[in-house]
Amino acid sequence: MNDSATPAASFPVTNRNRVRRKPDRARFDKATVYDILDSAMVAHIAYVIDGQPYCTPTGFWREDDRLYWHGSSASRMIRAQAAGLPVCVTATHLDAIVLARSGFHHSVNYRSVMAYGTTRLVEGEAEKQRVFDGFVDRFFPGRSQEIRPATVQETKATTFIVMDIEDASGKIRATHVMDDEADYALPVWTARYPVHQVLGAAEECPRQLPGLSLPDGLQGYQAGRRLDEVLLEAYHTTYPTKG
Amino acid sequence: MNDSATPAASFPVTNRNRVRRKPDRARFDKATVYDILDSAMVAHIAYVIDGQPYCTPTGFWREDDRLYWHGSSASRMIRAQAAGLPVCVTATHLDAIVLARSGFHHSVNYRSVMAYGTTRLVEGEAEKQRVFDGFVDRFFPGRSQEIRPATVQETKATTFIVMDIEDASGKIRATHVMDDEADYALPVWTARYPVHQVLGAAEECPRQLPGLSLPDGLQGYQAGRRLDEVLLEAYHTTYPTKG
Repeated sequence: MNDSATPAASFPVTNRNRVRRKPDRARFDKATVYDILDSAMVAHIAYVIDGQPYCTPTGFWREDDRLYWHGSSASRMIRAQAAGLPVCVTATHLDAIVLARSGFHHSVNYRSVMAYGTTRLVEGEAEKQRVFDGFVDRFFPGRSQEIRPATVQETKATTFIVMDIEDASGKIRATHVMDDEADYALPVWTARYPVHQVLGAAEECPRQLPGLSLPDGLQGYQAGRRLDEVLLEAYHTTYPTKG
Repeated sequence: MNDSATPAASFPVTNRNRVRRKPDRARFDKATVYDILDSAMVAHIAYVIDGQPYCTPTGFWREDDRLYWHGSSASRMIRAQAAGLPVCVTATHLDAIVLARSGFHHSVNYRSVMAYGTTRLVEGEAEKQRVFDGFVDRFFPGRSQEIRPATVQETKATTFIVMDIEDASGKIRATHVMDDEADYALPVWTARYPVHQVLGAAEECPRQLPGLSLPDGLQGYQAGRRLDEVLLEAYHTTYPTKG
């Protein structure tokens, strides 16, 4: 084993990703940052065009220290990002609503990652096709081989953006009600309410052909399951060696 | 009735909020934009410091055409926004994952709002206290009167930011599987999976005093309910005349 072949276990802490507020909630180790990202399907991307910040919700996924997303080649966001833009990509999971005996200590439990880098275009037909398939398989293992391949028109109409994660910070709050000591004596009902994104039962396409059944790669998509857990599981099925 | 007293029913469409891609999904009427905002607890806020875009998840709420959020007076984001910054505040609800018979037509159903404006500080002790209570009551009707009031130290340590919504756009996708006509003949299993943020059962504070019971204002917070529906309901309880 050569140490230089081992990727760094943590992201560097810079002026940009340092967690100034509640530093006890900060996480810079890649294992934690990856898990938060890989449990999500939609991120919010901040970018600037003509001095105006925009925050666009976008489907995304990760490969190693790169984030990918895509959009129409005609999209203003995608055209600007294809030319290279600094962005901040944020994935957030709301885990609980936490009431308290004072307004000040009302809070939420959450896991979030803010990842920073500069965008560029995914180029080359073979790489574009690989990434097109990766976007499908990352969420639905094996599905790219079961569906109709992308046409030339479709790959032309779709632009893929990639961002190398230069630095990133995770932030986690996962505690119960935390009140000032004196306030526990107050007759105020308090509780924590768990919150999860949950899958409903599959609604099959009304034009489904007879005789088809749920593909193996979708066995994890069961009604009532937490989406973040299904997505993380699907991720590790498709990228078994990528942490 | 004086027409000039009737607020505009729609946000103006500008170069900033025009929906270029999939304009059939765009919504500019305030009733729809408000509902999407008022069904959410966390927004993502894009802002720029020293040329670097940031995207920060933040609890927020609406009053008329103003959005409010808060943070520690020591927070970098809050200090920059208190001085006045252009921002984009985005609230997103993921409603379904939509598989298809081609990669190109895989999609998600969602409701989102991107709201634009310039931040400023909430000033004045009385207004600050009103907004402090509003933040609690917007989510938990009546609760500000049941808990310990904020102390002078707490209101000093907390900065509230307000943004007038100058323009905003809603975007909604709410359809089933939509494939190219020829592809319906392919033997590919397809479906739509509903996704909802769902409340779990209240986990009472381990130091709860005996004899306390669920306050009236929290009756909507029932295990298994959709959070977006609970939040919208709570909003209309607290702001019955505010649409």
